[in-house]
Parts: sequence; C-alpha cells; structure tokens
Amino acid sequence: MAKRNIYLKTISLAEAIDRAKAVLDRDRLLGTETVGVAEAAGRVTAAPIYARYSAPAFHAAAMDGIAVKAERTFAAREGRPLRLEPETDYLPVNTGEPLPAGMDAVIKIEETVEAAAGAMFIEAPAFPWAHVRRLGQDIVASELMLPQNHPLSPYDIGALLAAGVWEVEVRRRVQLAFIPTGDEILDFTRRPTPGLGQVIESNSQVFCALARSWGAVPQRIAPVPDDRRALLAAVRAALASEAQVVVVGAGSSAGEKDLTAAIFAELGEVLVHGLAVSPGKPTLLGVAEGKLLVGAPGYPGSAIVCFEEVLAPLVAWLGHAAPPVRERLPVRLTRKTPSRLGAEELVRLAVGRIAGETLAVPLGRGPGMITNLTRAQALLRVPAASEGVDQDAIVQAELLTPAPLLDTVLLHVGSHDNLLDLIANELMGLPDPLRLVSSNVGSLGGLTALRTGSAMLAGSHLLDPASGDFNFPFMQRYLPGIEVLVVNLAIRHQGLIVAPGNPKGLQGIVDLARADVSFINRQRGAGTRILLDYHLRQAGLDPVRIAGYEREEFTHMAVAVNVLSGAADAGLGIASAARALGLDFVPLARERYDLVIPRRFSDDHRMQALFSVLQKDAFKAAIEAVGGYETPLTGRMMAPGMALGG
Amino acid sequence: MAKRNIYLKTISLAEAIDRAKAVLDRDRLLGTETVGVAEAAGRVTAAPIYARYSAPAFHAAAMDGIAVKAERTFAAREGRPLRLEPETDYLPVNTGEPLPAGMDAVIKIEETVEAAAGAMFIEAPAFPWAHVRRLGQDIVASELMLPQNHPLSPYDIGALLAAGVWEVEVRRRVQLAFIPTGDEILDFTRRPTPGLGQVIESNSQVFCALARSWGAVPQRIAPVPDDRRALLAAVRAALASEAQVVVVGAGSSAGEKDLTAAIFAELGEVLVHGLAVSPGKPTLLGVAEGKLLVGAPGYPGSAIVCFEEVLAPLVAWLGHAAPPVRERLPVRLTRKTPSRLGAEELVRLAVGRIAGETLAVPLGRGPGMITNLTRAQALLRVPAASEGVDQDAIVQAELLTPAPLLDTVLLHVGSHDNLLDLIANELMGLPDPLRLVSSNVGSLGGLTALRTGSAMLAGSHLLDPASGDFNFPFMQRYLPGIEVLVVNLAIRHQGLIVAPGNPKGLQGIVDLARADVSFINRQRGAGTRILLDYHLRQAGLDPVRIAGYEREEFTHMAVAVNVLSGAADAGLGIASAARALGLDFVPLARERYDLVIPRRFSDDHRMQALFSVLQKDAFKAAIEAVGGYETPLTGRMMAPGMALGG
Repeated sequence: MAKRNIYLKTISLAEAIDRAKAVLDRDRLLGTETVGVAEAAGRVTAAPIYARYSAPAFHAAAMDGIAVKAERTFAAREGRPLRLEPETDYLPVNTGEPLPAGMDAVIKIEETVEAAAGAMFIEAPAFPWAHVRRLGQDIVASELMLPQNHPLSPYDIGALLAAGVWEVEVRRRVQLAFIPTGDEILDFTRRPTPGLGQVIESNSQVFCALARSWGAVPQRIAPVPDDRRALLAAVRAALASEAQVVVVGAGSSAGEKDLTAAIFAELGEVLVHGLAVSPGKPTLLGVAEGKLLVGAPGYPGSAIVCFEEVLAPLVAWLGHAAPPVRERLPVRLTRKTPSRLGAEELVRLAVGRIAGETLAVPLGRGPGMITNLTRAQALLRVPAASEGVDQDAIVQAELLTPAPLLDTVLLHVGSHDNLLDLIANELMGLPDPLRLVSSNVGSLGGLTALRTGSAMLAGSHLLDPASGDFNFPFMQRYLPGIEVLVVNLAIRHQGLIVAPGNPKGLQGIVDLARADVSFINRQRGAGTRILLDYHLRQAGLDPVRIAGYEREEFTHMAVAVNVLSGAADAGLGIASAARALGLDFVPLARERYDLVIPRRFSDDHRMQALFSVLQKDAFKAAIEAVGGYETPLTGRMMAPGMALGG
Repeated sequence: MAKRNIYLKTISLAEAIDRAKAVLDRDRLLGTETVGVAEAAGRVTAAPIYARYSAPAFHAAAMDGIAVKAERTFAAREGRPLRLEPETDYLPVNTGEPLPAGMDAVIKIEETVEAAAGAMFIEAPAFPWAHVRRLGQDIVASELMLPQNHPLSPYDIGALLAAGVWEVEVRRRVQLAFIPTGDEILDFTRRPTPGLGQVIESNSQVFCALARSWGAVPQRIAPVPDDRRALLAAVRAALASEAQVVVVGAGSSAGEKDLTAAIFAELGEVLVHGLAVSPGKPTLLGVAEGKLLVGAPGYPGSAIVCFEEVLAPLVAWLGHAAPPVRERLPVRLTRKTPSRLGAEELVRLAVGRIAGETLAVPLGRGPGMITNLTRAQALLRVPAASEGVDQDAIVQAELLTPAPLLDTVLLHVGSHDNLLDLIANELMGLPDPLRLVSSNVGSLGGLTALRTGSAMLAGSHLLDPASGDFNFPFMQRYLPGIEVLVVNLAIRHQGLIVAPGNPKGLQGIVDLARADVSFINRQRGAGTRILLDYHLRQAGLDPVRIAGYEREEFTHMAVAVNVLSGAADAGLGIASAARALGLDFVPLARERYDLVIPRRFSDDHRMQALFSVLQKDAFKAAIEAVGGYETPLTGRMMAPGMALGG
C-alpha cells in the first residue's frame, strides 16, 4: 500500500521555537515606541529608566503637628513640659508639607498641648528627623528606576510618575494577522444555511482572545477559500501590513495544509513542518521578509496548542517579555492515561479537591472537540518518551484556573442526566459559587469511581431486576465497606427516542427487532443499558436481533442526536433528551436517578450547599418544567427497598 | 496630654469587605448587557447559555479519503483486496466535509490504492463511523454550554461560536471614579515648580492601572483641593455619574481624612473607619445612593493595600467574579520580622531561589516608599494576632511575579554601589534575562547573609587597616568554613561629598571636626563607615567631635541627598554618588569593591552569566564612563594580599 506521511520530520515544541528564534531579528522586526507612563502598564521597557526627580522632592512632614529644631527640644521630659514659642521655636505643619527652613523634626499634634499666646507645651524631646520624610528617601534623582526589558506593573507606574518620568520607551506590541482558510468555513459574523455543510469559523476568535490576553494586537483577515492564488495574495498582503506575524488558520485537511506549506516555501522558507505534539501536530512555521509565518491546524484542540505552546512563547520573546507560564500543582490521576511514544501529549483534566487531595479526571482527547477544553481545569503534559501514566499516579498538572477555585469544585463521575446542568447553573448562583464538574461514565463507572476515591458524588439509576429496587442492591458489590448517602435527584421517564411523528410507528421494545428499524445503544455499565437488557430479557428478545445494538454512545443527548440525524431510528433514553431536540418519545419505564455520596464527604460545605439546592421548591419546579421528570422524592434521603415509593 | 485617635474602631479586612457586601445590592447596582461573543472574553455570564446548533452540525469526514458504507467493506482483508466502484461503493471526501448520504464511514486516502476506471482497492474493512465526526459529538443543540456567573475564557468564545451563539448576556463592567484630593498635589499631567512643595499625584494612575487589570473601567476626576465644598461637589457629581464606586484619594493628613469621612456621612453612611491592617489603616468605606464610597489613604504603600485588599475583592464581587488571588509559595525568611499585635501586617519581600530553596528578604515597610513595592517579588501576611516572624522561619508568601521567574533572580545582599544598577540592566539584556535583586545592608551585613545562606552574592569593600588588604582578612571571622570566590567589580574612589563649589572649603578628614561643619554618616557595618573610622583614627580624631556622626544613612545616594538638601555639609561616599547629583567630591582613598560568592554557587548558570558580563569590555567601558572607578581588576578573581595591585 502506498503510504503518505508529510510529517516525517516532526520536531519538539522547544526545537520548533528555537528554529524560529534563530532566524528572526526581533529588535529589527518589532522596534520601540514612546508612550505616556499612565498608559504603559503591561508594556516592556526598551531601555533603562532613570529618575528625573527625587521623591520626596523635599524634606516633608510625615505627620500633622509642629515642625521644630530637634536640639531646641532636648530638655523636654515627662512631667517637665517645655514651652515652645510660635515662629521662633515651632511652626505648624501638615502631613506632606515641606519642612520649614531651619527645622529638622516634627512633633505629632497629639503630643502637644496648647498654651497661651499660641505657644505649645511638649513633654518629650524630638530626635533629629523624627516624623520627617527626607528628600530622596524613596527615590534619588539620577538613580536607575527600572532596567531594560522590564514589564511595567501598576506599582511601577506610580514610582515613575513620582520620579518625574512622564514618558517611557517601550517595545512595540506584537501585531498578528490571522487568515482563516477553507471552502467549507463560514465567516463567524454570518449565519449558516442548513444543509450546505458549512462550518462556523471560530478559531480566529479564539486566536484573537488569546492574543489580546498576551498583550498583542490581533487582526482577523476575511476568510480565504482553498485556492492557491487567493491564499498567496492574502499572505502577501498580510506580509505587507504592519503585522510581524502572519498566521494561516488552515482547514483541517492535509490538502489545505500542503497548500499553506507550498505558499510559505514560495514566499520564504519553511522552518517546521509538523510538531511531535498531540494535539497540534499539523503546525507549520516559516519565515518570509523577516516575519514569522505560522500555519495553524484546523481542529480547535490542535489550533489552541499551536497558539499557546508555539505562538505565545514566540510573541513574548519578540517583545522581550517572559513567556506565559501556568501554576503547577500535584494531582492524582483517576484513570490510566496511555500515550503514544514519540509525541508529547497534552491531556486536559477535570480537577477537584477532596479531603486534602487533588483529583484529576482525564477528559477526552479528540482534537475536534472544543468542549474538552472548556470543561478542563488543568492540563497534563505526557512527555514524548512516555507510554502514558498509570491510574492513581501523582503527576504535575498545569492549572488553567486559579488554584483556590479547585476548592469550589464538586467532582461528579457517573451517569449523565440533563438535570446535572440545572444543578451546575444553580450552584453558580450561590453567594459562594460552586462548580459542578462532571465526567460521564455511566452508573457503574460512577460507583467504581467512588470506590477508588476518584469522585465526590456519583449519579446512578441502576435497576435491580430481582428486587425492583434502585442502586442499593449494587452497593454491596461495588462499594464494599464504604458508607454512603443516597439522595434522590428525580424520578425520570425512560423510553424510545424516535424521530418527530414516530414515522416507523414504534410501540415498544419488541419493535426494535424489526428488520426496518436501526437502533443506537448506550455503553456497557450505563444504567440505561442495564434497563434495556432487562426489558429485552422480559420480552425474550436476543440482542443480536437488534440492528445497531453494538453501536454505543455515552450520553442521552448523543443517542438523541443519532435519531435526529437519521443515523438510527431509535435509542433508549430519557424524555428530556428527546424534548431538547424536538424528537418524539415512547415511554417505557420510570426510574430513580439518585446521587450517591460517600458519608465521609457529606459534611463538606459543598455537599451541604448541594443538598440545600436540591431541597428548594424553585429547583423542583425547574425540574418539572423540563418535562419527563417527577419530583416527589427530590432532595430526600433514600433507603433500601423504597423503589419508586416514598 | 490630649490624645486623638480616630481609628479606635479599626476592623479586619474580611469584616470591612463583609460590611460593604451587606449593604450593597450588587445586581441592582451593576446590571447586565448583551455583547458580541467575539468581544466577550474575560466577561462574566449573567445567565446560563444554551447551544443553538450542534457541533459538528452534520456527520463530517475526519480524514481525507473515501466515504463508504461500512458493511460493504467487511470482506476486505490483508492480501485479499476488495474493489470499490466510484459513486456506488465510495465517494471521495475531504476532512470536514459532510458525509455523503448513505455512507457511514471514511477510509483514509493512504489506505487505498487506485485501480482502473476510478475504482479503489482496500485491504481492510471499515467499521461503522470510522473517521467520522458525528453530528453533535462536541456540542448538542439545546444543551447547557455555560452556567451563569462564569468568566468567559478564549476557549469558551470558540465553543459558543461553534454552537451558534453570537451574543451573550454578561455582567456590566464595574465603573470606578477616582477623585484625587489635597492642596499640595499636582495633576500628574503637569510639571512641578521647584520650591512650591508640590507632590506629583500618582496614586490615581496606579489605581487606574490596577482597575484595568481587574477588568473594571476606571475614570480619574481632576484633583480637588482640601476644601469641604469642592470635595462635596466632586463626590456628588461622581455619584450622579455611571460609576458604581467612588474613590476619594485622600491626601495623607488626618485632617483630610476627617473631611472625607464627614462628607461620606453627609451623603450617606460611613461603614468602615480604619482597618486593622498595616499599611492601609486609614481606609474609609461608605455607602450613598446604593453606591460604594471608598476613602483611600494618601501614601502609595497604604493606598495600594486599600486598592488590592479591599477594593479588588469588592469589584470582583459586584460583577459575580472570583476575587483575584496570588500563587502561594513557601519561602525562608532571611531576617527576623517583628510585627505589632492587633493589625495584620503586609510585608513586601525580595525573593530568589538558591539550591532548591526559596529565600525571602523582607524589604522596608515605610508606606510612603513606593520602591519597596516595585522591588518586591512577593508579599508576606503577618496575622493580627502575631508578634512577628523569626529569622529562618518557613512562611507562605504570595507571589507578585510568576514563580519560574524566581529562578532567574540573583539575590545580592551587601554593600551598595551604583554599579549594581549597571549590572542589573546588563543582566536584563541577556538572551535569558536575569534579575539582580539587591538588599543594601553594608559589607558586613552581606558577609553575614552569606554565612546564614541568605544570599547568593555579597558586595564588599572592607579595608583591613593592619594589612592594607581588602575583604579576605574578614573571611576567617565572618565566613568560617565557607569557601568563597572573590571577584572584583571595580576599584572605586571614596571621598567627601560636598555641596557644589565646596563652599566650606573642606580639604580632608580633619575638617569634619570644625564647629561650622555638619556630617552625615553611614550605618555600622558599612565598609564606608569602617573606612571613615580608620581615617579618623589615623588622624587622631575622636568621633564625638564630629557633628552628625550619629546620623546614619544606608546608601551613598542617601548621603549625597543629605548634602544636596543642605541637611549636612559633608558625608563620606563614592564619587559616582556625588556626580549623579551634581555635587563636588574631595577624594580621600581608593578601595576595592568585590563580589563575594560562595563556591557552591559558582557553577550556577546565573553566576556564570554574571561573570561573563563582568568580563565584557563594553561593560568595563560603561563603568569608566560613570567616573570615579577604575577597572584594571574588574571581573578578575582576587586572592589574599593583592590589595589594589593585580
């Protein structure tokens, strides 16, 4: 078989950055400018800055009181007040005012007593320079205030103004041009037309937001189709602009990537053709006319790695700034995380803290899924030489959120239900907001996570066919020796999710075996899968007779999407998922969806906050409004044998 | 004696913040607005956001290749190629394109071989949905994308656009009005007139820079004099504006503070009158017309605590954002740091890392000195109930700089010389910039710091009168058992710093005993003090005969400032300090200023970088250009007995 591999020479992130640095003359490329100090916070000094004035600029009173000549006060003692005459012996002075000529100390007003004729008594001597801020005590004119290449802080702004420095020479801001490409993409300002296969172009706006956060100035060029001439013209125009960096936001196809590389080679030189990093591999670097060229991957997960891991350090370097860094924190990885040899892998993590321990649940790694990024609180870097990280290993994670916020996370691992989103939103509305972070692995997966101490709570709706009870019959096997609370979230309706109008006229479980019906299933361990298998057994149906039984999805919504798109005629799921997408629903069963919580976490303030949300009438009303749920048990503690009764 | 204490009821930072929260109705005060998603990074959602479209919006090819119906490929095996006909069996497809109707899998182009008549051979079957990004795999229409009160990240921007969300309802930005007050202050945009006792108003610009860094919108009102009517009118006008918070930047006097409090009481209610925190104590909080009133202290060190510790959390709270937090790090405190009971104390720290340990040198605590803030890398919080922290205690510091930058610090403790600024600037110009952080404690203080492992290098110019040698004779006593390298920085000229034209006609050390001459001394342990005492002994002069012998300063520049301001007629110091301020200089001696470096640090990359700077001809030329220095030994390793010879 013919093999095509355009990324044979993938190189590490560090090497890619070094190659770009080696060919760019940053000082010639970027240059400097003079700006007013009041607008200079965050900018980087291009030259050392010296004080023009001293601060204080004169000997100044540091207290409200009287200015004196210290040696005139030496005789004062407690019980032996010394009388000071106005003008000759003392002069009144307020904080910040210049010390009158001839005076060298200040006595606080509260340590004086007024005598007749404007005279003052004191009962303690003043030492020379007492309560005086001396000329130059803070800043001495001509001193170095700040060195070159120093990022100006708000404090620096104050110090510079106090030193009489009104303007500073700083490095220019790096300007970046971003050219989105691809026939299929749609300018993000326009609305898509259904059925045309358009993709809303969003990478440019992620790019612009990131670039602004680096202190750079991004500019988005109008999208360019997959056409050699058009792209060549767009890159040429961007090179002719003020921008020091030109980024081509490629579509995701190898063909488009080749086009970008060819244009870089035509205009200048390709420096890097593929990175040994995942996601982010299809990154290109080049140079033309002394400017940096970047070919960014099309998938958002890959593009962001290109932006943050390659471009951000280079933009910082161009402006003599320190590269952006993230706080690091040791975390316990709750799942084995394999990694391919030969490429550094960046894995996004959902992170929460329980009982002094920081837990990290690896999120999915599909580069096309931006929600893996929006849901993450941290990032794990698996080195190129590693085959992965074992479950329960302690690893250094890079935080994407401030560390104290990890203490506000409720880490849920278990079955998926749309009501979890309702809870998440409620928790963020509390006076001390809490963040519900959820990993959807099904009911059994959730109980397993509780057993290994990898979650704070687990959503579960496991039916025990023998007893007709929910969840409790599974505790013995899955949570031996672990004491738990079981709190009901809702009773919910499970049924067949079918296309609007139920075109195949499905009435019940037996219809799934019809030759003209295709099915979409849930993954093993999911409560809904167990429910399906129970009903199949009840009906005496062999799963092999169901077309699509082997196709698995991980959430109700994903099942519903299969039905919506015609990929399947039916799936078993909850009513709210059908309703959300305007699908029809054939009810099959009612079941209890509970939250299982280890008792050792039940006093945690986060858990207490969750309990109070569940008990709010307004929250129950919101559940009822979704449809497909009943709330007689919501927020109540469950006990074995209750089944669907109270 | 009459005592005045307006801060009797000082309260903690937390209580002050709680009082303000208790009286403010944040949602009524701030409100929400709708903004385009592309401009929304950093803003906080005011309501939950739901997906309008699914992403992908259709089943999309995840690879360049051919779209097939999986079941049509099941017969393919290695060595038994299966032939696929165009149109009927397969259709070409590029990454990102919709899967053609009827197809449910993609085979990568590199896993196909072209046959005659446009047919394709494959040698492996495709599983259903292989290399297909399914509709809704990332985002399902109607799903909760983000909860309320969520700060939008750049990633979120991409996810929202992909989900067809073009506009979001967010909390308005907090608007802050800052009114500088004080008769003595000068609008920062104007130039001061010498002799008028004007102070350049800089707090407003520190305030504005900080507020912008919080995502708030600051506005500076023109400065207002210390006049009840004028201030009342200014606060009223600010309350009538869009601002939700009105800050009166007080002058530093108690009188001005009283004025602000009275106006707050007249317009509304005073909530907090003084904080149990140092610096920052003279902070006022009030409320009027439902808006927050703040009286900020006048000293920059106090004002910044008011801004960062009180206002920043309240601004975040108003907008439902998380309060700003700093990364924490354990550090070893190199000096005992006493603290008064009853007030939380914030101590700025100079921080560097040596041999795996993070060292923190407490900086000065004068609230009037903004350079204590600009020089700090971290902050220590000493609780109100603590009397201070012992030397070598391990304490949690709050970082003001990214943690990795601490590895780029060269921590110098020792004698002060202006050339250290020259080095600091050179080090920041290196490809990997280094930060020279300096604590000026004199030569003996530096050697002591080396002994306790509290510094990486110490500048020293200690003359041993007996041998005429420098520094080495002191090693035995101050650095027993510690092996050091001694590298010369320069030979420098010490002498009397006198007013321009040398009006008192000072010729040498004996003139200091004249009745009409006042002196300013250096602190005990300073090499210059030792040099003075040596010359006094040589001349047979008793120190008590020198007026001002007991007045001590810590740097050459401070000594020079005393002479410049007429506070003293002369001080002993280096020529460069006199030159910097346009003063005259009466040479007395040449001395060696060396850098003393423990051998265990000499291989550190930072030290190696320092050595190479010292050996540069350009650096030596820069030293010579300062004047008052000679460089025949600069950058050379010193040995005992060399004195001023090579």
